[in-house]
Amino acid sequence: MVLSTDRIYLDNNATTALDRRVAEFMSFAISAEHVSALGYNPASQHQEGRSARRCVENARDSVLAALKCRTTGMDSDRLIWTSGGTEANNLALFGLAQQHPGTIIVSAIEHPSILEAAKKWAMNPSNHVRILPVDTQGIVRLDILERWLIEGQERSQPVSLISVMVANNETGVLQPIQEVIHLGHRYQALVHTDAVQAVGKIPLSFAALNADALTLTAHKLHGPIGIGALILRGSLTLEPQLYGGFQQLGLRPGTESAWLTSAFYESLKITLALQTNAAEQMRTLRELFESKLQNELPDIVIHAANANRLPHTSSIGFPGCDRQALQMSLDMAGIACSTGSACASGSSQPSHVLTAMGVPNDLLQGSLRFSLSRFTTSAEIDEAVQRISNCVKKLKRQPSFSFSSPQPTIGS
Amino acid sequence: MVLSTDRIYLDNNATTALDRRVAEFMSFAISAEHVSALGYNPASQHQEGRSARRCVENARDSVLAALKCRTTGMDSDRLIWTSGGTEANNLALFGLAQQHPGTIIVSAIEHPSILEAAKKWAMNPSNHVRILPVDTQGIVRLDILERWLIEGQERSQPVSLISVMVANNETGVLQPIQEVIHLGHRYQALVHTDAVQAVGKIPLSFAALNADALTLTAHKLHGPIGIGALILRGSLTLEPQLYGGFQQLGLRPGTESAWLTSAFYESLKITLALQTNAAEQMRTLRELFESKLQNELPDIVIHAANANRLPHTSSIGFPGCDRQALQMSLDMAGIACSTGSACASGSSQPSHVLTAMGVPNDLLQGSLRFSLSRFTTSAEIDEAVQRISNCVKKLKRQPSFSFSSPQPTIGS
Repeated sequence: MVLSTDRIYLDNNATTALDRRVAEFMSFAISAEHVSALGYNPASQHQEGRSARRCVENARDSVLAALKCRTTGMDSDRLIWTSGGTEANNLALFGLAQQHPGTIIVSAIEHPSILEAAKKWAMNPSNHVRILPVDTQGIVRLDILERWLIEGQERSQPVSLISVMVANNETGVLQPIQEVIHLGHRYQALVHTDAVQAVGKIPLSFAALNADALTLTAHKLHGPIGIGALILRGSLTLEPQLYGGFQQLGLRPGTESAWLTSAFYESLKITLALQTNAAEQMRTLRELFESKLQNELPDIVIHAANANRLPHTSSIGFPGCDRQALQMSLDMAGIACSTGSACASGSSQPSHVLTAMGVPNDLLQGSLRFSLSRFTTSAEIDEAVQRISNCVKKLKRQPSFSFSSPQPTIGS
Repeated sequence: MVLSTDRIYLDNNATTALDRRVAEFMSFAISAEHVSALGYNPASQHQEGRSARRCVENARDSVLAALKCRTTGMDSDRLIWTSGGTEANNLALFGLAQQHPGTIIVSAIEHPSILEAAKKWAMNPSNHVRILPVDTQGIVRLDILERWLIEGQERSQPVSLISVMVANNETGVLQPIQEVIHLGHRYQALVHTDAVQAVGKIPLSFAALNADALTLTAHKLHGPIGIGALILRGSLTLEPQLYGGFQQLGLRPGTESAWLTSAFYESLKITLALQTNAAEQMRTLRELFESKLQNELPDIVIHAANANRLPHTSSIGFPGCDRQALQMSLDMAGIACSTGSACASGSSQPSHVLTAMGVPNDLLQGSLRFSLSRFTTSAEIDEAVQRISNCVKKLKRQPSFSFSSPQPTIGS
């Protein structure tokens, strides 16, 4: 039973609550009476430094193994620790583009840390970036991708790099990433994929995927904010974006945190161990959420309802509602959800993802994202449906809050 | 009393042990039964996000106030959170250089995260970088700086940016940063200063210093690895180095950690509160260390012994010793020290700082850095002197370890 004053957190795509076991691991590591190896500088040559180095390298190897990377041989895949998904995406885009000249293709529904980086890259007139559209279900257009790859070769402006996410952060829609990678490689393009939202939600093997680079981050996996990673196919060259010491083979200098990297692996390990059951549970609850909400509010539109989606994400259009007003109203009613990517929350623009899908303006202005986690309960879902439906009905009775359905002016 | 098997950590310039109160703060924040505000995404618009935002902004304002920045008015100084000192230094160098075209001057003794960034910048033939030499005490040459500033104006190649650290990380030598800033401003150059080693060791006021930008990081202040900051004089424009969301006014996108930023402030607050006494204690112990070591080993050379130095840093040349062999030998004897910056520890080259000071090769090859913290005890210092002196004497009896004094070959 959820009391009406209880908060219900349905914004797990923005960030997830720290798993208690990860929190305990982290607390133990810093509060231990004995001096902990996790606090030292892994670049130091002494015993303390080497202990920290071992922790960092163990975490690195373990993350690589957990994501089924190639970990043996000269061509082993590599992992570069970063401060999070944004830095990893920027490193992939700029770092690969600088070493592999050619046209870049990114999809229209990428996270701002890919889209804005691509826009920055395109500001140099000698660089060429193309934004790959999606269909009405939010799936990248493979036909257009192939046409652009062929055009690039015909015009001697070959595509060198493609960045398409595994699954979208707003709609949850799974992209045909395997096909994107096949296509890209057929035309000698590298493929980077942002797997920030997908890792831990669907089975993922870096080796089977055969991507060239993949981004992930701990805080979407019930791990801490402040640590992410870029996985790179072995032997692939990349221009560093930070300059300084010799850490991470000079590809990403700066003191590594044994403690954050180990906590990252802890969160990944726990999340992957629970993945199958958690995904099943989240999918059931998400379907319950959507069908109950549709019963209460028959005119809502579930975006990309028929597409393959991550099990925990629901993007819903409430016709006649203003998303900002509804989000605030829900917040006051104890429901945490979002109007889109948290990284874009400073923007007054509607979702670039839904815009790219061609969602009509009325729905675009009234769309919210709800995202569950393995900690979401069916009592929370039941209660959330009630509160959302109450809020929407209340808002619709207040024409001043209505954004997209202005009242006709009498006499005009 | 320190047992001979106890480790003595004298590498606090590489990183400092987490202060127990900071560790307790961090543990409490993640292990609290109630949902903690510190774990949410500060970019989220809901209550949870706004709580996290308040923590991040409180930490920001508190760090600015603690370093006596201008915190009122339209021209308030700003703080950009980064993943650490390396990112903050890179952001300052590239970010200011890109917006303020002109010659860049960096000192020869800067941290690799400034020097390597400057070298990268200079790889573009249209960019111009000059490396400011230091004197034999490791102090930047103000006369040359002024000459270069004048030359820049005469040749219509004005200097736009100077980066000189407050105090060197290897020798501890305090730089005439106030004069550098005066000079720079007289010739319309911006001045960035890397204060990573100085903050918490000497009194520092950003407003009084009148620098344009200043770098600091938590893990040199008994705070966690993984969080640093660049302080910027109000109104100063800077090109972001990461692209993505709207966080930090777009100057440094990426999800901010309320938890790390708050822990950063906790460590700064505690360190500044203890600063006067801790500095006095460290200076006394450092002097004891140097004088006792000189009694045991009369031929050692304390680099920049007569310069104004940070109270806790000692760079010592052991004639006839190889620094790598001595560092390893000391490590086996339970002393953690370093051959230079931890960030440069992958390098087989001797210290660029001592090289810039013109230290003769024999001493250069046999120089180590010892750095104390407020947790260093006099018993540790006494014991360290004994162990170091034993190791040096033992190494000198083993000609195979002698690097710079090869044994004459009989008969040749």
